[in-house]
Amino acid sequence: MEGHQQDGDVVVAGDARQRFYDARGYGRPGTGDEVILAPVEAAHLLFRGDLEAVDEAGFASFVAGRGDDFGARFLVYADLRGRGFYLSPVRTDWVADPPADGDFVVYARGSGPPDGEVAYVVRAIGERTEVPATMLGDVVLAVADEEGEVTYLETGRPTPDGSNGASPPATDGVLLADRVLVSEPPADLYHRGFYGQPLGGRGGDDELRMLQLSLVESAYLAGVDALAVEGGRAALLDRGRSVEGERFDRRLTVYAALRDRGIVPKTGFKFGADFRTYAAVDSVESLGHSEDLVRVLPPDHVFTPRELSLDVRLASGVRKRTVFALTDGTDGVTWLSASRLTP
Amino acid sequence: MEGHQQDGDVVVAGDARQRFYDARGYGRPGTGDEVILAPVEAAHLLFRGDLEAVDEAGFASFVAGRGDDFGARFLVYADLRGRGFYLSPVRTDWVADPPADGDFVVYARGSGPPDGEVAYVVRAIGERTEVPATMLGDVVLAVADEEGEVTYLETGRPTPDGSNGASPPATDGVLLADRVLVSEPPADLYHRGFYGQPLGGRGGDDELRMLQLSLVESAYLAGVDALAVEGGRAALLDRGRSVEGERFDRRLTVYAALRDRGIVPKTGFKFGADFRTYAAVDSVESLGHSEDLVRVLPPDHVFTPRELSLDVRLASGVRKRTVFALTDGTDGVTWLSASRLTP
Repeated sequence: MEGHQQDGDVVVAGDARQRFYDARGYGRPGTGDEVILAPVEAAHLLFRGDLEAVDEAGFASFVAGRGDDFGARFLVYADLRGRGFYLSPVRTDWVADPPADGDFVVYARGSGPPDGEVAYVVRAIGERTEVPATMLGDVVLAVADEEGEVTYLETGRPTPDGSNGASPPATDGVLLADRVLVSEPPADLYHRGFYGQPLGGRGGDDELRMLQLSLVESAYLAGVDALAVEGGRAALLDRGRSVEGERFDRRLTVYAALRDRGIVPKTGFKFGADFRTYAAVDSVESLGHSEDLVRVLPPDHVFTPRELSLDVRLASGVRKRTVFALTDGTDGVTWLSASRLTP
Repeated sequence: MEGHQQDGDVVVAGDARQRFYDARGYGRPGTGDEVILAPVEAAHLLFRGDLEAVDEAGFASFVAGRGDDFGARFLVYADLRGRGFYLSPVRTDWVADPPADGDFVVYARGSGPPDGEVAYVVRAIGERTEVPATMLGDVVLAVADEEGEVTYLETGRPTPDGSNGASPPATDGVLLADRVLVSEPPADLYHRGFYGQPLGGRGGDDELRMLQLSLVESAYLAGVDALAVEGGRAALLDRGRSVEGERFDRRLTVYAALRDRGIVPKTGFKFGADFRTYAAVDSVESLGHSEDLVRVLPPDHVFTPRELSLDVRLASGVRKRTVFALTDGTDGVTWLSASRLTP
C-alpha cells in the first residue's frame, strides 16, 4: 500500500481504515475507507514494511529532512509500539480528552484510540533538548538518546509530608567558619529532633559532648528561637550567604518548608543532592533509611535530560525518590518529582 | 597537660613526648621530652580531653578563628583517628618521604610516624572547595560535608586497555538531523564491532535491516574510511558541532582514543556520562556489563566535590568505575579515575 502527503499528514486509501485504524490503532478515520496518519505513524508503517512508500519515498527518504525533533518522536513511538502499546499523537480532534501537554497519549494495554483508558501522557525529547521546570509535573518524559534507546522518566507533583512535630529545645553555640559547635547540647536536639551530627561520630561516650550544626540548620534553629550565637540569626545568615552565595537562602527556605511539614532534612552531599529526608523519626537510634533526595533549584532552572537521567538513576539505585524543590529563596516552594519508569 | 603556641605549632612539655608521640603517634619530638604538635593534632587532643588547654584556650576557642579550611582538616583527622589510623600532617621535616601533594600521610594500620608504611596520601577539603583536575590522580580526597561526615574518594591515573581490534567493514549511510541510518549493514559492523544500535531494538528479524549510528560513531567511522555519507566526514563533523557545540570534538577525540586502545565505547546517557565502555566484546550476543563510565571534560575543568561524590556514588552503585577523559579536542587525552574508598 502507498500513502500520499496531504496538509501535513499522510492519507492512505484502499482498505487502510480497517487495516491500520480498526485493527491496529494507527491514525484516524478519513473519508470512506481512508485513514489519515500523522507523519510519525506513517514513518513507523514504512519502517515495518506495511506501507511501501509515501509519494514514492521509502523510510529513509521520508524521515530525512523532517525537523530536528522527528527522530526522537519516531524512536519513542517505535519503542512504545514495540512494548505492545497503542498510542496516538496528541491532537485535539484525534483523542477524546486531549491533555494540555505532551506528544503522545499512550493507552493502557488492551485499550486503543479514540477513547481508550490512558496509561501515560508522554513527551518525546532528544537527549539534548532543554527541559524547563514547567515541562515537569504532569507528563512522562521519553528521552531518545544518541543511539536510539529510550529512557522514560515519570514526573509528578509530590506533597512532602512527615510526622516529626516536636519543637527543638533552646541552646547556644559557637559560630565557626562554616558550622556551629554546641557544647553539652540538650539531648532531644539530636536524639529527637535529629538536628546536627555529634562531633566524633555517632555512638560512644563522646556522643553528646559536642554537636555540630550546619549553617542551614543553625539559621533555621535561630529563626525558631532555638539557637543563640554571637551576632544572632543575622550573623548566621551573613555567614551562610558568604559561604554558599545565593544558594543559601534557597536551601534555607526549603529546609524550613520541610521542617514545617514534619520532615527531617539532613545533608544530601553523599548523593550529590542538597538534602536527604526522613518522614518519620521516632528516635535517632531507630533511624531507617531516608526516602527522598531533594535538590534545591531556582524557579527558572532549565534541566538537561542527562542531568535528570543521572539524578533518577542514582536515586533509584539507592531506593530513594528524586524531588526537586524550586524556590527563589524568599517564600513558597514548588515541589516536583522524577522517577524511572518502565512502561 | 597544657600546651603553648610557638611558631604556628603547639609545644607540650612534661612527658608529652612519650605520652603523645611514642605511644600514640602525635606530632614530632622537640627538645628533651617535649612534643611539637601541628594545630590539627593539638585540636584533636583538646577535643579528646588529653590536653586541657592551649594557652588557656579550650577546644572551641582554639578552633574558632582558624582559617576556613581548618574545620575540614580537623574533621578528616578525627575521622581517620576514629578508624584506627596513625597519620601525620605532610611536612618535609616530619615524614620520611614527603609526597608532592596532600595534607596527611596516613599509615597502614599497625604502622606510625616517622617512617611507617604509608597506606594513603590524603587531601582534606570541604564540600565547597574547588577541585581542579590537577588535584586528581595521586591522592585520596577526603571531603568533609556540612554536617561533618567525611567521604573518601580514591583518585588514580588509569590506562584504559581492551582487546577489540577488528577493523570495521565499509558501508554507507544517510545523515539525518542527529544520527546516521545504515540500511542492510554488513553484519560485522554491529555484531563484531558493536557499532550502532539496530533500529527497533536488539533481537528479532528486524535486527539487521537498519542500523542507526550516533554522530560520534559516524564521524569516527568516516575517519577510518568505513562510512560514506553525502558530504563525507566534513558533513558529519559539521553536523556534530552544530548539534553538540565544542563538546563534539572532545567526545570524538576520546571515542577515537578508546577505540585505538581496543575499547568499545557506547553512549553513557542512562548513567549521565558520555560513554560506557567494554574492554572485551567477543560478540554482541555474549555482551557482559560495561566496566567504566567515561565523562569527557576540557583540560581546565574544575570539579566540585558534590559532582565527584555524585559520579562516584552512581558508578559504584552499578559496579562500574568513573573515568574522566580530559582533552581539548585536538589530540591527547589525560585519563583520571575516582572511586569510593572506605579506609
